[in-house]
Amino acid sequence: MNPDSVRRVFEGRVISVVVERWGEHEREVVEHPGAVAIVATDREGNLVLVRQTREAVRRELLEIPAGTLGPGEDPLSAAKRELEEETGYVAGQWRSGPRFLTAPGFCQEVMHLFFVEDVEGGEPANEEDEEIEVVLVPKGDVERLLGEIEDAKSLIGLLLLLHGRA
Amino acid sequence: MNPDSVRRVFEGRVISVVVERWGEHEREVVEHPGAVAIVATDREGNLVLVRQTREAVRRELLEIPAGTLGPGEDPLSAAKRELEEETGYVAGQWRSGPRFLTAPGFCQEVMHLFFVEDVEGGEPANEEDEEIEVVLVPKGDVERLLGEIEDAKSLIGLLLLLHGRA
Repeated sequence: MNPDSVRRVFEGRVISVVVERWGEHEREVVEHPGAVAIVATDREGNLVLVRQTREAVRRELLEIPAGTLGPGEDPLSAAKRELEEETGYVAGQWRSGPRFLTAPGFCQEVMHLFFVEDVEGGEPANEEDEEIEVVLVPKGDVERLLGEIEDAKSLIGLLLLLHGRA
Repeated sequence: MNPDSVRRVFEGRVISVVVERWGEHEREVVEHPGAVAIVATDREGNLVLVRQTREAVRRELLEIPAGTLGPGEDPLSAAKRELEEETGYVAGQWRSGPRFLTAPGFCQEVMHLFFVEDVEGGEPANEEDEEIEVVLVPKGDVERLLGEIEDAKSLIGLLLLLHGRA
């Protein structure tokens, strides 16, 4: 399944945009390297979340840790790297969750979800980046927390955790 | 919360892209008018899904009905319009579900989720568009269906339905 023609209209650092012709239709498509997101719990049964400014949507969000895949990077390696960079947590028992498309109408981003238990605290690798605040939430409060969550990947991760599908 | 500067790099039919400067950071941001998605069940207890080609991701997907908001369009009106256009189903009891951001790291899209029961069959308004296939799935099969679902909005809608949060 390939477009009849592709016109590259923006080449950015994270995303690029192409306009594709598919027969009678023209499609604006955002190219994205893919991303990882992690539902992490520590040995005390706390969920490890992050609060950070999301400039694109003009506000702070409380989310599960996540980040963009590097070139050729394996998703599990990326997930471990992002969790450590954003929160300082390492180790634990890792399992793969579902992969999903965040916005398949116009964007190629694939999100790889992971679950990890018994992570151990450490120091965030990006100590100079004070923009990410680590927030620990007891697993028993996940139900209540859902009302505060505004992004798709965190909703999916927490709904799966809450209903024992993790 | 506003960027220091904004450079518009692509103006499309559905999306636009701006590069924003926020202090030391540059952010590539996809502007999007917002969208609606609908978890619809008919009087026989079937879930109303759609199968269609998603050119951006090079394959067919099975999803809940969804579509982009028109300029100034009210989300509930858009949801009723999209459901009818894509599936022919109308009427029913409507309720608002959560709103969520599909990819807040780089995209402004807000997805408005709706739930509707007892929809009544009709003729799709876009009869000439043969690219959308309506797929009815008994609600009891939602659990099994989850493994086939690849997009975030449908996962969220079906998880909420399955766990009585709709």
